[in-house]
Amino acid sequence: MGTALAHAWLAAGYQLTVWNRTAARAEPLAAEGARVAATAAEAVASADLVVLCLLDDASVGDTLADADLSGKDLVNLTTGTPDEGRARAEWARARGARFLDAGIMAVPPMIGVPGSGGYVFYSGSREVFEAHRDTLAVPAGTTYVGEDPGYAALHDVALLSGMYGMFAGITHAFALIRKEKDIDPRDFAPLLANWLVAMTIGVHGTAEQLHSGDYTQGVVSNLAMQVAGTSTLLATAEQQGVSPELLTPFMDLMRRRLDQGHGDEGTTGVVDLLLR
Amino acid sequence: MGTALAHAWLAAGYQLTVWNRTAARAEPLAAEGARVAATAAEAVASADLVVLCLLDDASVGDTLADADLSGKDLVNLTTGTPDEGRARAEWARARGARFLDAGIMAVPPMIGVPGSGGYVFYSGSREVFEAHRDTLAVPAGTTYVGEDPGYAALHDVALLSGMYGMFAGITHAFALIRKEKDIDPRDFAPLLANWLVAMTIGVHGTAEQLHSGDYTQGVVSNLAMQVAGTSTLLATAEQQGVSPELLTPFMDLMRRRLDQGHGDEGTTGVVDLLLR
Repeated sequence: MGTALAHAWLAAGYQLTVWNRTAARAEPLAAEGARVAATAAEAVASADLVVLCLLDDASVGDTLADADLSGKDLVNLTTGTPDEGRARAEWARARGARFLDAGIMAVPPMIGVPGSGGYVFYSGSREVFEAHRDTLAVPAGTTYVGEDPGYAALHDVALLSGMYGMFAGITHAFALIRKEKDIDPRDFAPLLANWLVAMTIGVHGTAEQLHSGDYTQGVVSNLAMQVAGTSTLLATAEQQGVSPELLTPFMDLMRRRLDQGHGDEGTTGVVDLLLR
Repeated sequence: MGTALAHAWLAAGYQLTVWNRTAARAEPLAAEGARVAATAAEAVASADLVVLCLLDDASVGDTLADADLSGKDLVNLTTGTPDEGRARAEWARARGARFLDAGIMAVPPMIGVPGSGGYVFYSGSREVFEAHRDTLAVPAGTTYVGEDPGYAALHDVALLSGMYGMFAGITHAFALIRKEKDIDPRDFAPLLANWLVAMTIGVHGTAEQLHSGDYTQGVVSNLAMQVAGTSTLLATAEQQGVSPELLTPFMDLMRRRLDQGHGDEGTTGVVDLLLR
């Protein structure tokens, strides 16, 4: 990811000093015009804007242990948790730097490719974001989500978590048709993908309900009906020889919410069941 | 759903005889021009095309116990499992009827509304589907998925199962931001929805890999990297006070597949782990 980012800025004509723990990683960038620093501290000293993209949050502290950060604008594209983003912002402030945390919603092949759909969440110092907005927009789209330096990571993780739920559903769906010789998965794919796209409308319904606090607002298919329907889903999994382990946790929570007397709601109440 | 279907056909000028276990349910349809039969058998006797939309598969057998089905074309829009569809097709054949099973991918408000996106899977007798294609297209779009009378239900259940996976992911995502006063769920919703829509591209990649048998084909983010990333997702859930119960089953399966030596694949191999 670091190489992809550096490549995008170099391609756009930016002057860049790069450093990588593994020196060989930086060499192709030198051929593209980057200056290669011998140490991370030297790279930091070369510019006012310092972009970090390392293995994990601990690597940020280790790598910059000897660097003079005073007066620098740090933009941290290293993957981490919200609390790591917050602690790293405090650490940067204590060392005289302004800090912007980031969460990258893209894979390396999408970086520097206009229209790829890839973008980066930013949170923390609004001043840093505004000062470097055009520069940050070179490798990917930018979305600023608040002064809390933990919010970029939180948005990043929330979207990835949502995606893994969807992947779990997709996995179960393909397992159901896996042994059917007369169903080509490539014919099934657009049916499933189009259905999932259509059902993302539920995201907006849930958001409205969480905002208003009225979880019955606009409900079309209520929880009582949905829980009644789960038996067909489970029986089908059984018939097709598919373990229901990816389906049952959500079904169990729907049933728990129903048993608490919320049969006229949709599924939004399950959100609250997850909170400790 | 039965009322919505009948209403759509009546609005399109079709002659219709209706029957409902609860007679009062049929009354508004009489006002729209439907003939109301006193018994299910009488309704069946009134036409060559018989559309069934009942509580469950057992109700189909019970309701039509006394009806003469010989020479009839039965279209069964009752929700059921693939095996129920197959057994019901045998039952219909034994009684002299042709049989088409169906799975409705719509809620009642979408029925008879052009452009609503709602549609119905059909499988079983291709002759019945072709003979009544225009009639069946009145309440919702039609998608014929094969001669196997179980395939309509299988497609229906597979898409619904995929949807519940996505709902589980959406639920976890909203739980992560639930206690953050500075994040309006209505601002978060389009970010999540757009991300999920973009990530449905994975459906097609999985289909291609299942077809080719090469689960490393076109992999951008491999399983080793993805499993490494799960610690950030779990730590974030912990920090936000959110139970990881909707995430862990899929993560556990990804790790199992990785442990089997498939770190260079994507997530497609998890499909096979679900099969018994």
